[in-house]
Amino acid sequence: MFNWNDKFAARAAHMKRSSIREILKLTQKPDIISFAGGLPAPESFPVERVRQAADKVLRERFNDALQYSLSEGLPELRDFIAQRMSRPGLTLTRDNILIVGGAQQAIDMIGRVLLDENDRVVVENPTYLGMLIAWKPYNLRYATVDTDNDGLRVEQVEAIFRQKPKLIYLVPNFQNPQGVTLSFARRRELVRLLNKYQVAVVEDNPYGDLRYSGEDIPSLYELDSNQVIYLGSFSKIVAPGLRVGWVAAPPPILDKILEAKQSTDLHTSPLTQMIIHEVVKDGFLDEHIPRLRALYRQRRDVMLQMLERYFPPEVQWSRPDGGLFLMVTLPKHVPAAELLKHAIQHKVAFVPGDDFHVGEAGRNTLRLNFSNAQLTQIEVGIQRLGNLLKEVLVKEGGLFALP
Amino acid sequence: MFNWNDKFAARAAHMKRSSIREILKLTQKPDIISFAGGLPAPESFPVERVRQAADKVLRERFNDALQYSLSEGLPELRDFIAQRMSRPGLTLTRDNILIVGGAQQAIDMIGRVLLDENDRVVVENPTYLGMLIAWKPYNLRYATVDTDNDGLRVEQVEAIFRQKPKLIYLVPNFQNPQGVTLSFARRRELVRLLNKYQVAVVEDNPYGDLRYSGEDIPSLYELDSNQVIYLGSFSKIVAPGLRVGWVAAPPPILDKILEAKQSTDLHTSPLTQMIIHEVVKDGFLDEHIPRLRALYRQRRDVMLQMLERYFPPEVQWSRPDGGLFLMVTLPKHVPAAELLKHAIQHKVAFVPGDDFHVGEAGRNTLRLNFSNAQLTQIEVGIQRLGNLLKEVLVKEGGLFALP
Repeated sequence: MFNWNDKFAARAAHMKRSSIREILKLTQKPDIISFAGGLPAPESFPVERVRQAADKVLRERFNDALQYSLSEGLPELRDFIAQRMSRPGLTLTRDNILIVGGAQQAIDMIGRVLLDENDRVVVENPTYLGMLIAWKPYNLRYATVDTDNDGLRVEQVEAIFRQKPKLIYLVPNFQNPQGVTLSFARRRELVRLLNKYQVAVVEDNPYGDLRYSGEDIPSLYELDSNQVIYLGSFSKIVAPGLRVGWVAAPPPILDKILEAKQSTDLHTSPLTQMIIHEVVKDGFLDEHIPRLRALYRQRRDVMLQMLERYFPPEVQWSRPDGGLFLMVTLPKHVPAAELLKHAIQHKVAFVPGDDFHVGEAGRNTLRLNFSNAQLTQIEVGIQRLGNLLKEVLVKEGGLFALP
Repeated sequence: MFNWNDKFAARAAHMKRSSIREILKLTQKPDIISFAGGLPAPESFPVERVRQAADKVLRERFNDALQYSLSEGLPELRDFIAQRMSRPGLTLTRDNILIVGGAQQAIDMIGRVLLDENDRVVVENPTYLGMLIAWKPYNLRYATVDTDNDGLRVEQVEAIFRQKPKLIYLVPNFQNPQGVTLSFARRRELVRLLNKYQVAVVEDNPYGDLRYSGEDIPSLYELDSNQVIYLGSFSKIVAPGLRVGWVAAPPPILDKILEAKQSTDLHTSPLTQMIIHEVVKDGFLDEHIPRLRALYRQRRDVMLQMLERYFPPEVQWSRPDGGLFLMVTLPKHVPAAELLKHAIQHKVAFVPGDDFHVGEAGRNTLRLNFSNAQLTQIEVGIQRLGNLLKEVLVKEGGLFALP
């Protein structure tokens, strides 16, 4: 019998399945109320628009929609994105934009283009799990920065930048998993430090349009477009199943990412790109994003209310101004991974926070998604979880003690 | 000004833009007859079927089509592929199949999972350019095997296998760029050697269904499914713009490729997968593939006739039984890259063979694509190229002498 295990590359030993995706499978039973995924609300999908767009594209532009296409992406979609991202003092063109098969692909390609083994990379702790998994093969040395309600604690950054890291990765808006947002004052200070120490930035912004309270804040890319690789996505503002995102970056780095794109998968589907362009080109997002905000604001508000009502006082949680997630912090001795096993028996699910953290931190944290549950599910699910927690905290030092 | 060039990973220095894709751009002017691309005939696309499939999927299964999805791919599409690939004595299930965003993505992911820097890899010479580009970052040591009309010269293989290479990559059917096919006798001998020396195989088979003469030959995967990673694609039998291909492989290696898929782009678009499944599920390919074969057979035949008629006797070419390409060999002193500059002035284009070759070989070769030109274009284009060649060969030792 042929032994494949002898053949794997050394880097493949670092790879592991995403625990989120494995959990997603477990929690798909219909009787479980799941706050585990990161899914947008399917009832928010502009189904009829997408259907009409697909029909139009396949009637009028079928040859281009079904043929091989350019690695850079559909020119008119790149133009649309460039225009939408332009601001007074920041004029973008299609040459600043590369279309990718979702922002996850961009993270993966940035790793290939920028990261050598053992490079020093700065991240929020906790940070986006998909980035940690994609960059795992590089065996990076992470320098972690704590976060609070204003996001990354920028006062910790300068000492780290003095050690000359290769780059900093962050999700400044409604971060996954915490839901926190980097304040404007901190963004300005961070850009000053980035300039001073010449550190590259990956600004991952899939949730930026989904703000439910507070004021929009300029992106790091708007504050310094020379030094920032910006990742955008249509997954949360149109639909994830089309798999279309983009990178906005200065041409030298965009060129390199384009080379990676060519060798990775030649190009993203022109059909799905054309559908997206057809959906968004005439102002659709200006109507649709307010609808999404209203829908998700209500879900966030109900989840926060239910947390107040049903969770015991020893438990804390973040209060996000947008996005899809909030993070719960349990008392130190309660491991969320253990809690999950009991929660599933109580027909409610979440993602333990361990995997979002670099190092051993976060075992007493968990992430709750509020975008993909109906209001009554949020009410019932948080009540179930709250009851379980009260039970657990009574048994303190027993069932859930850390080994 | 921020200096991105200081930030690139060492491996990014190996990356370069695909010359094929750059050339594709140059030759898209409407007055140029291009044999340069590798495009299927757009008139072969089942446009109306795809449109109806998209409409049905977006009416009936819109939530699943537009939501995040499983990394493994659509279960019913994996079932379909497993069934279509099954043979007496070889029963596949969905667990043997992983959906990818085109076979190029599979090549890229196999590199990540199997290849360490400086690994020894066996290839046909010339071989598929997209593989050479995708695996360039690994700085591989290639062991090359010559080819003739029966494909890879298997008698050269044993000496190479004794040096314990990691794997062999090959396109056994209607190879890109040469169009040659590995004979059944050689496949059996190759499998014997593969077993004896325990070398892994990547069998890339995008063209297998496109046979215009001769008999179908069992794949290496059919001969030994334990040791072969098989790559298939809908790009040439439905349409490339949907970006759907697959990997068939034993579970241990498929699991690792799945992990790479998760971190690369989470999953392939469920919409395009559902469209493909809707198009193919009721026997469509049984009608469609014979139509494709008839269409391309005629184009191949006309190109071969025109080559006989217009090309000077010093020039040779392959006579493929299928696929999209044939390869032309010029006299040794005529570099195809130089010839291309003149050819474009004469309004005809092709791809020089250099880039398909490992090492310095092949500078006097070029690849012609016959699938994406009308019959009259083939007639006129080959005549133009033949006239240019006659002119060039008269000036022998002059204009095109190698430096």
